[in-house]
Amino acid sequence: MVTLKGDERLDYLLAEKLRIIQSPSVFAFSLDAVLLSKFAYVPIQKGNIIDLCTGNAVVPLLLSTRSKAHITGVEIQERLYDMGQRSILSNELDRQISLIHGDLKDMPVELGYGRFDVVTCNPPYFKTPKKEEMNYNEHLAIARHEIHCTLEDVIRVSSQLARMGGKISLVHRPGRLLDITELMRKYKIEPKRIQFVYPKQGKEANTLLVEGIKGGKPDLKLLPPLFVYNDKNEYTKEVRYILYGEEGLY
Amino acid sequence: MVTLKGDERLDYLLAEKLRIIQSPSVFAFSLDAVLLSKFAYVPIQKGNIIDLCTGNAVVPLLLSTRSKAHITGVEIQERLYDMGQRSILSNELDRQISLIHGDLKDMPVELGYGRFDVVTCNPPYFKTPKKEEMNYNEHLAIARHEIHCTLEDVIRVSSQLARMGGKISLVHRPGRLLDITELMRKYKIEPKRIQFVYPKQGKEANTLLVEGIKGGKPDLKLLPPLFVYNDKNEYTKEVRYILYGEEGLY
Repeated sequence: MVTLKGDERLDYLLAEKLRIIQSPSVFAFSLDAVLLSKFAYVPIQKGNIIDLCTGNAVVPLLLSTRSKAHITGVEIQERLYDMGQRSILSNELDRQISLIHGDLKDMPVELGYGRFDVVTCNPPYFKTPKKEEMNYNEHLAIARHEIHCTLEDVIRVSSQLARMGGKISLVHRPGRLLDITELMRKYKIEPKRIQFVYPKQGKEANTLLVEGIKGGKPDLKLLPPLFVYNDKNEYTKEVRYILYGEEGLY
Repeated sequence: MVTLKGDERLDYLLAEKLRIIQSPSVFAFSLDAVLLSKFAYVPIQKGNIIDLCTGNAVVPLLLSTRSKAHITGVEIQERLYDMGQRSILSNELDRQISLIHGDLKDMPVELGYGRFDVVTCNPPYFKTPKKEEMNYNEHLAIARHEIHCTLEDVIRVSSQLARMGGKISLVHRPGRLLDITELMRKYKIEPKRIQFVYPKQGKEANTLLVEGIKGGKPDLKLLPPLFVYNDKNEYTKEVRYILYGEEGLY
């Protein structure tokens, strides 16, 4: 039986196959984490995956349904790390998923360079704001703003952790596309697959998925666009399939 | 009365408002040129626009329906320049559109640096191939391959021709996205609007539209995706509107 603390709740992930501890005041996963977990290439039978900025371990939990590889999650906030640990235990996934409470910048030294087949990250999206603009809730501020790590930290460390030929997948805002692709190339990751996510037809994209290969050759593919809502403001078939596993076109 | 030479034909452009001379063996405009002409920002009442790699002047002809600005077209192939000249005369647009038969690399010196409000270009898409792979038809080879100008030439010259705050719009293949954005930034053009064109829903993008601002600040927008064909392999409403001016959602 899982222990819930404070305003935590136990939510379903992926149509009742998994459950996850969330808290509105501390951290609740977003659609972006789900999209990243579906977008990222993963080896099916074996290998090593690492998820940076893992929060309540939503990405490792979701990746575990697609891969038998070992998955390491890294989270700097102890409160979120603790939520993630309990979620992993309650799903009996502690043999496949290991969480580390630490700073991602220390991981190459702690875990070793070039050891991972896949690196995933749903990093903080916003540049560190002025103090008065910063989110008052420290947990949320750290998850959303580049306080403990910048985009460059994330991409540099991802490159250090990935093996040559390993894949690095990120989710971010479309406005950062060029920062991401330039930083990837700076750290020898060649962007290979990009997908834009649009809230609905006719709207500008609000989410960007990018996958690069460490030491890869230039050959960029633009995947079909993904629309989140249809004209009736319901999730599209593709997104229902990603979220709930319902049969769809995806 | 317009004179047609060899296998040339006089085609309609934009639902009979304009006519254009084309030739299957020399040059016929593509949908990409039409998309570029619709995508590019243009001043409505006055200003100076230049279209590089103008071919049979399809982009200047189309832009003339959206702007009263003066439009200069530059084409290195005399045969295409000549077709363009006759198309401009047959549409009585010779006061608004001037064609230059010359090399775009000479234009900053010939026409002046920083003189244009808008630069457009539908450049050759393919890197210069080995001789045996090259298109046997020289006219088509020059239009399609980077024989007389590379992508870097196009972007460097565009930056030299544009005034500070002027806009540069290109159409290209999505696989060159990162080359284009990196070259734009190298030559002080900040990419601001990107639109991907998909042959149909669920397919990868095959065309990229990019607009940058000379000396602009980073703030990239991803426009809604454009689909060319619907499920029945007919042009979508948006594309019919762009091609024929039919009422649509666009």
